[in-house]
Amino acid sequence: MLPSGDFGLVGLAVMGQNLILNIADNDFTIVVFNRTVAKVNRFLDNEAKGNARVVGAQSMEEFCLRLKKPRRIMLLVMAGKPVDDFINALLPFVEPGDIIIDGGNSHFPDTNRRTKALKEKGLRFVGTGVSGGEEGARYGPSLMPGGNEEAWPYIKDVFQAVAAKSDGEPCCDWVGDEGAGHYVKMVHNGIEYGDMQLISEAYDIMKRGLGLSGDEMADVFDKWNKGVLDSFLIEITRDVLRYKDDDGSTLVEKILDSAGQKGTGKWTAINALDLGMPVTLIGEAVFARCLSSLKAERGRANKVLEGPKIEKFSGDRQKFIDNLEQALYASKIISYAQGFMLIQNAAKEYGWKLNKPSIALMWRGGCIIRSVFLKDITSAYRKNPDLENLLFDDFFNKAIHEAQPGWRDIVSKGALWGIPTPAFNTALAWYDGYRTLDLPANLLQAQRDYFGAHTFNIKPEHASSKYPEGKNIHVNWTGRGGDVSASTYQA
Amino acid sequence: MLPSGDFGLVGLAVMGQNLILNIADNDFTIVVFNRTVAKVNRFLDNEAKGNARVVGAQSMEEFCLRLKKPRRIMLLVMAGKPVDDFINALLPFVEPGDIIIDGGNSHFPDTNRRTKALKEKGLRFVGTGVSGGEEGARYGPSLMPGGNEEAWPYIKDVFQAVAAKSDGEPCCDWVGDEGAGHYVKMVHNGIEYGDMQLISEAYDIMKRGLGLSGDEMADVFDKWNKGVLDSFLIEITRDVLRYKDDDGSTLVEKILDSAGQKGTGKWTAINALDLGMPVTLIGEAVFARCLSSLKAERGRANKVLEGPKIEKFSGDRQKFIDNLEQALYASKIISYAQGFMLIQNAAKEYGWKLNKPSIALMWRGGCIIRSVFLKDITSAYRKNPDLENLLFDDFFNKAIHEAQPGWRDIVSKGALWGIPTPAFNTALAWYDGYRTLDLPANLLQAQRDYFGAHTFNIKPEHASSKYPEGKNIHVNWTGRGGDVSASTYQA
Repeated sequence: MLPSGDFGLVGLAVMGQNLILNIADNDFTIVVFNRTVAKVNRFLDNEAKGNARVVGAQSMEEFCLRLKKPRRIMLLVMAGKPVDDFINALLPFVEPGDIIIDGGNSHFPDTNRRTKALKEKGLRFVGTGVSGGEEGARYGPSLMPGGNEEAWPYIKDVFQAVAAKSDGEPCCDWVGDEGAGHYVKMVHNGIEYGDMQLISEAYDIMKRGLGLSGDEMADVFDKWNKGVLDSFLIEITRDVLRYKDDDGSTLVEKILDSAGQKGTGKWTAINALDLGMPVTLIGEAVFARCLSSLKAERGRANKVLEGPKIEKFSGDRQKFIDNLEQALYASKIISYAQGFMLIQNAAKEYGWKLNKPSIALMWRGGCIIRSVFLKDITSAYRKNPDLENLLFDDFFNKAIHEAQPGWRDIVSKGALWGIPTPAFNTALAWYDGYRTLDLPANLLQAQRDYFGAHTFNIKPEHASSKYPEGKNIHVNWTGRGGDVSASTYQA
Repeated sequence: MLPSGDFGLVGLAVMGQNLILNIADNDFTIVVFNRTVAKVNRFLDNEAKGNARVVGAQSMEEFCLRLKKPRRIMLLVMAGKPVDDFINALLPFVEPGDIIIDGGNSHFPDTNRRTKALKEKGLRFVGTGVSGGEEGARYGPSLMPGGNEEAWPYIKDVFQAVAAKSDGEPCCDWVGDEGAGHYVKMVHNGIEYGDMQLISEAYDIMKRGLGLSGDEMADVFDKWNKGVLDSFLIEITRDVLRYKDDDGSTLVEKILDSAGQKGTGKWTAINALDLGMPVTLIGEAVFARCLSSLKAERGRANKVLEGPKIEKFSGDRQKFIDNLEQALYASKIISYAQGFMLIQNAAKEYGWKLNKPSIALMWRGGCIIRSVFLKDITSAYRKNPDLENLLFDDFFNKAIHEAQPGWRDIVSKGALWGIPTPAFNTALAWYDGYRTLDLPANLLQAQRDYFGAHTFNIKPEHASSKYPEGKNIHVNWTGRGGDVSASTYQA
């Protein structure tokens, strides 16, 4: 058989099927395979029926034989062991120079490992983030490839052809070495957790605080979708709030309020803790999902734990909704600022060269967090690729200043009304902490030195011969105890 | 030589030295060793001079020969590889039945591993939390031993003799299997992070919000230390705030506000994320330390990011300080409630039997978080060991209800004034979330089903033949796309 395939894809779940059709639409001949081979035939007889660009394979060997060299093989299988299993199954049939691409939600350390291991065999491994859900896969996802950079010239044409476009630019560019692609996808998902939590808080405040109906809230989101918050998630929130059950009531109100949180959001928060970066909003968003999942326990708590009675809102309703928009917008700015801080720090920590304007561009279209907002972030980083923090960009600086009064009003009202707004709160506390020259951590350092002889440093402006700058200082706070500072032991 | 040693200790850093003197004070003969042998002699010639209960050893072999069987050997060395190295160095000289105790801040999975590995060699391994800093080690620490339970009858006498006492009861009891002791110590440290952060926020609000001086704040903490907040950390905060530099100014104001956060607090937050438990206060406390450590960047942010001008406080100052006390108290209740939820869940997850009243008792004295408050927690769990949540206990239920108005006032003021109170905020948001029957996670589930076909469940009270209870439901929200739900692929 003559190899006719431009590209190969293994894994015929919904994302795989849709991506195959997308690749075929872009005039690449694509060879497809699935472990349960019956699924290949079912796909060829249904979704891909009559599509001359889609070629089925009945075995791994046939799959590889049908691909032009260097082979370009993408796996869209479950993250974890299945990826290693499929790579091992491919090994007998591939050759040095061939390219294996993992398009699942793999954890970036696995992608680091696989890139290195396959490089030793002469194979070029790519771990790519794919975002946009089933719609995105079909009509243009956001693609975030990283790994062995030698592969990029060979896959660029396919990737940039099938990816979403934003103002004519493909939402796909080379991210960086090893697991950098999957890392950026992980942070994307963390940010997605944050965005969804922020929208949920706004919805809760409108529903319980203002007593708005589903349709009234849909109107608010529709309006917001024409302003600074214009984004896919705001748009679908509008649609969800309009969607009716057969009895004419809003369906979303009947959905169980218990959300899963195992996965990439959790990984982002753990990575932030590992790198010592205060990515508080994603952290709170993950924890909010954890709390939601304790539905039965909350039911019992609801019976014995009281809060303020929520009174009928008597203020200026439109003004309040405008404040809410500002709270959401400002919190979102903080969340993205934190996310980019994390990425920046990861690049340093892991020795990756990352291109911040490209990352923002990749997220502008195709993916779940796509928005006009990301266009502004792209501009900010294009203007200054070394921008230390998004908040230092004039556009976002101005935005956050204008949003502040409304934002503070909402956080304050949430606390007084007893409606939880953990993500709005943490964003504001982080902003106030970030802009504070002298935080109260001086007291904390004194405490640690008091009870554990952990030592402290002196503020440069207060240095003296007794307390010199940059030295680890221990004070005998009590007059008892020793002057020995803790070295090897941390209590 | 005739073995005369009741107990052996390896590691002569400050904690080790102090614990040795404590053990000797309790009439046990203790054999001591250190890798740098010169340190043994230095210790015998100084701190332990003339102390007949302290016996030095010049080699690992001599150290073991001098111990009665079964040998009881405690390592107080740096966590990580050094613990494994010392265990390996001991192996040639110990016998089945001997007990090796790791008293460092080891990560509990390491203790799980070591317990199992040494059990295979017939050795009984114990991983024990030790808290109380140098003072605690010398005069009575809190001890939290776990591991191979066969060891407990042999070490109970020494451990309970040297431990702190609270109302006559030793702050030491057997915690549970494998790494349970180190796990409980880890959560203790996480809670310590939280307590310190809460105190720091109260200090910041008093300093910048009310304009109080160091001495005025010391007076407030002194008063608080006579009420519900009576605790070691409040007491030392008072002392720290009174401590003057030679020029008569408050020393703590000169200390650099940049705190470290690598260690047990971080581990607790990561474990909470891993177990899916919303331990938000420790999470925020760790992140607050991360933010504090970005001192230089904050300096640049301070120049361009503005907030509200803090005006001279014109309200009832004493009332405000009382509210602050309530905010601190209520937030602390939430933090401990979260901590015990985590421990409870870990016991289930890891298959440990844990004794909650004992854990509270162990923390009552000796350790950094010792407090009157822990006496109330001990009572609550003694009254009902199966208490699902601290907040369901009458005492704490009443306390949190009384504290609410003040707590809400402080969180609201912090937001309006621009003084960050991330731990107060997250505690309140968590409380409001925990007591909420219907959280907005229903919207989040709808969004996930919309863009990723992730499915949702229906609230039981809204189940119908179209949307049956307990089933994973997918709705075609847009009229476009398929009815296939996501199975193997998470976008």
